[in-house]
Amino acid sequence: MSTFVVVGGDAAGMSAASKAKRDDPDLDVVVFEKGEWVSYGACGLPYYVKGEIETLEDLVSVTPEQFREERDIDLRTGHEVVEVDPEDRTVTAVGGDGKTVQPYDHLLVATGAEAVVPPIEGTDLAGVYTLGSMTDGKELRDFVARSREESPTEQPDSGPACHFLEGCSGAVAVVGGGYIGVEMAEALAANGFEVHLFQRGDRVLKGFSEATSETVAEHLAEQDVALYLGSAVEAFEGDDRIEAIRTADGRVTVEMALLGTGVRPRTDLAEAAGIELGPTGAIATDRYRETNREDVYAAGDCAEAEHVVTGEPTHVPLALTANRHGRAIGRTVAGTPTEGGGVAGTAAVKVFEIEAARTGILDHEAATEAGFDPVTETIDAKSRAGYYPEGGTVRVTLTADRGSGRVLGASLVSEYGEGAVHRSHALVGAVTEGIDLEALSNYDLAYAPPFNTTWDPVLTAAKVLGGTL
Amino acid sequence: MSTFVVVGGDAAGMSAASKAKRDDPDLDVVVFEKGEWVSYGACGLPYYVKGEIETLEDLVSVTPEQFREERDIDLRTGHEVVEVDPEDRTVTAVGGDGKTVQPYDHLLVATGAEAVVPPIEGTDLAGVYTLGSMTDGKELRDFVARSREESPTEQPDSGPACHFLEGCSGAVAVVGGGYIGVEMAEALAANGFEVHLFQRGDRVLKGFSEATSETVAEHLAEQDVALYLGSAVEAFEGDDRIEAIRTADGRVTVEMALLGTGVRPRTDLAEAAGIELGPTGAIATDRYRETNREDVYAAGDCAEAEHVVTGEPTHVPLALTANRHGRAIGRTVAGTPTEGGGVAGTAAVKVFEIEAARTGILDHEAATEAGFDPVTETIDAKSRAGYYPEGGTVRVTLTADRGSGRVLGASLVSEYGEGAVHRSHALVGAVTEGIDLEALSNYDLAYAPPFNTTWDPVLTAAKVLGGTL
Repeated sequence: MSTFVVVGGDAAGMSAASKAKRDDPDLDVVVFEKGEWVSYGACGLPYYVKGEIETLEDLVSVTPEQFREERDIDLRTGHEVVEVDPEDRTVTAVGGDGKTVQPYDHLLVATGAEAVVPPIEGTDLAGVYTLGSMTDGKELRDFVARSREESPTEQPDSGPACHFLEGCSGAVAVVGGGYIGVEMAEALAANGFEVHLFQRGDRVLKGFSEATSETVAEHLAEQDVALYLGSAVEAFEGDDRIEAIRTADGRVTVEMALLGTGVRPRTDLAEAAGIELGPTGAIATDRYRETNREDVYAAGDCAEAEHVVTGEPTHVPLALTANRHGRAIGRTVAGTPTEGGGVAGTAAVKVFEIEAARTGILDHEAATEAGFDPVTETIDAKSRAGYYPEGGTVRVTLTADRGSGRVLGASLVSEYGEGAVHRSHALVGAVTEGIDLEALSNYDLAYAPPFNTTWDPVLTAAKVLGGTL
Repeated sequence: MSTFVVVGGDAAGMSAASKAKRDDPDLDVVVFEKGEWVSYGACGLPYYVKGEIETLEDLVSVTPEQFREERDIDLRTGHEVVEVDPEDRTVTAVGGDGKTVQPYDHLLVATGAEAVVPPIEGTDLAGVYTLGSMTDGKELRDFVARSREESPTEQPDSGPACHFLEGCSGAVAVVGGGYIGVEMAEALAANGFEVHLFQRGDRVLKGFSEATSETVAEHLAEQDVALYLGSAVEAFEGDDRIEAIRTADGRVTVEMALLGTGVRPRTDLAEAAGIELGPTGAIATDRYRETNREDVYAAGDCAEAEHVVTGEPTHVPLALTANRHGRAIGRTVAGTPTEGGGVAGTAAVKVFEIEAARTGILDHEAATEAGFDPVTETIDAKSRAGYYPEGGTVRVTLTADRGSGRVLGASLVSEYGEGAVHRSHALVGAVTEGIDLEALSNYDLAYAPPFNTTWDPVLTAAKVLGGTL
């Protein structure tokens, strides 16, 4: 009997374990998870903090009991793997009744990523949070609940913590204008906090197009978020608790700071075992997600994957890739070698009342490095027929290669519900298949007045950019 | 100086005229339109009848004056072309000050389609309508307005016209369960009419999957539309005005009937000029939309186009194809030979509070005829993360070729706003490019909890159908 050992019980790990066991019920599948939570939707944490999701348990798609009893997986929560020995083909785990040395035939390293805490003074103060784990989520929600209870909502003047919002629950800082940053800005503002968002670079959502970033920045302002662009945080100030945040431009009193300053792959265990990292600093894999060590796979937020446009290794720690690659590894381990496909760097985000998505290569420097001659256009188009009573604007940015017309990347933004995100699906296909603008503009996309103009904004963008080549 | 003559001033004709003139300002562009309306969105007529759009003028994207003055197009409304002579390269038009014989270098036949009036007794009665033209739309809106004024909304018992809805504006029949039929059912119900929908075949929206048709039928019932499936209308009864509709199963008193029984390409003019029709009965064209007569093009609802899956001629009279092929012809005539791309048979429709889209080949008989071995699966999936406070269900039907896994067609339905239509965009790409299920299921589609589950329903459908091959 063959044994498949998985290190890490979240998306990649549990997808692989489940698929392997389903495809080959004779396989022994052992999963070590150092925490107590498995298979949870970390992407839902901002909505849990916001209060739209009742309990942390709601974020769990399959419980440990279900994995054990219904899927016959030997899931050991509270077990931390401290060593991988690819020569002996064993892993050593600590937890429960002590130390376990577990032999494997196939191994998956799915150790995930962890929130980056920037090297700034004061990050250890109480009231400075990250949002990487379920525990983080719980702590933030508790903070929100406490502040709401204490906030003098009945009085227009709530004290020094509020700078411009009357009767706010308190002034808080969000550091970092990526997904977590903007989603948490929404979650906190919805709870009556006055939100100060600090972004070191000159725009939020820097992986999106500049046009998308501008739209999001304008919207944040409309939602009374104080946005500080090009504003590197120098220190968090306070005695035991945070009292203020300091940048080169000044000092803002806040009673909480959320660090949304990115994540870093957890690779210590792999590195110690002689598993190679790639150029991004995440674990290098081939197209089957196998590492340089035979029968040792890596997937999810700790691993690289090849980009569908450039073919080069990239590190995009997002949920779908973790699930997809986990599932592919499960199939491979169960006897059907399966490539999980590359990544397009696709991402979606809701920011208050707008939505945005991006895919492929938008950055001209990156495109040029990959051998393309990038050209970009942004269009504003109606989201529905002009005469239809509902509707808004979809802003579409497309980047293509001047010579071939190949679509390299896209970024879309619209009012929430006006379809920027679902429309990006078409562009993921175009980017993945290497479609050119002419072919894309000829796509027979669905049209009816409640959903788009006769030429969907995606087609209009392809026509307009195509016209500049 | 070269002259481009266009017969028919709607989507295909005006797109071609505009594009040709823009790309080659030296070109003389003459458009003959027998009516007074040009470049109007007939797809918006149900919403005009419903009352959501104020005036017919709102449906016009570019006015005749704008075409003449801003685009320098010699647009002659009220001029009917009665003859095309491809030997002499002239068209003869009647209207205005008499008869015009207009020479052409390039000619576009864009005569459109007309509503089919089935050979049933009583279609000539007052109160029996079609919805093919702006005039039709006006008459229907006037009927709605009159009935609402006359309807005894204050009284619970409104008289014999209402069968099951108390205080309705009157009982009306919709004949045909295609797009026009279901959209008009919504438009009429929204105005307080009791709607009886008669469908000769055994399901509504027969071009969609059976699962979609069932979902739509259930929804129509929820919306108090009386749906008669497998119910061929035998006669409209009445003296001058319609009083009842008769089928094999019985007789329903109604005060109005709307015929949504399909359209037929207007080909008389072309046929008389020796322009060949194709197997569908519409005008045959090559990939540049040129007919068998040199320099004579045909596009829009009167013409065929090749299907992107089968490569065979098909007749799908919808707005985007008309616009796209018109534009391509305009470019060609202006000196840049341009293929407008085939059609995927994509369509979208809103029905009360649900939305649906379809693309490609779903019908097994048609797929088999084209040399495929079709296999179909339907899945129900959550439209957003299960824990997200909003959301519904997306039902996705996929049809693929068993041997190659190639995606042949798709049909999607969801609550309105839950993204069935915009999600279909991804599947148009898959169908057009001949992508297989494995590749589709590996697409790095955008994910965030407010928009989908980690695996978008489109991906789940590809995985499930792929698993059955």
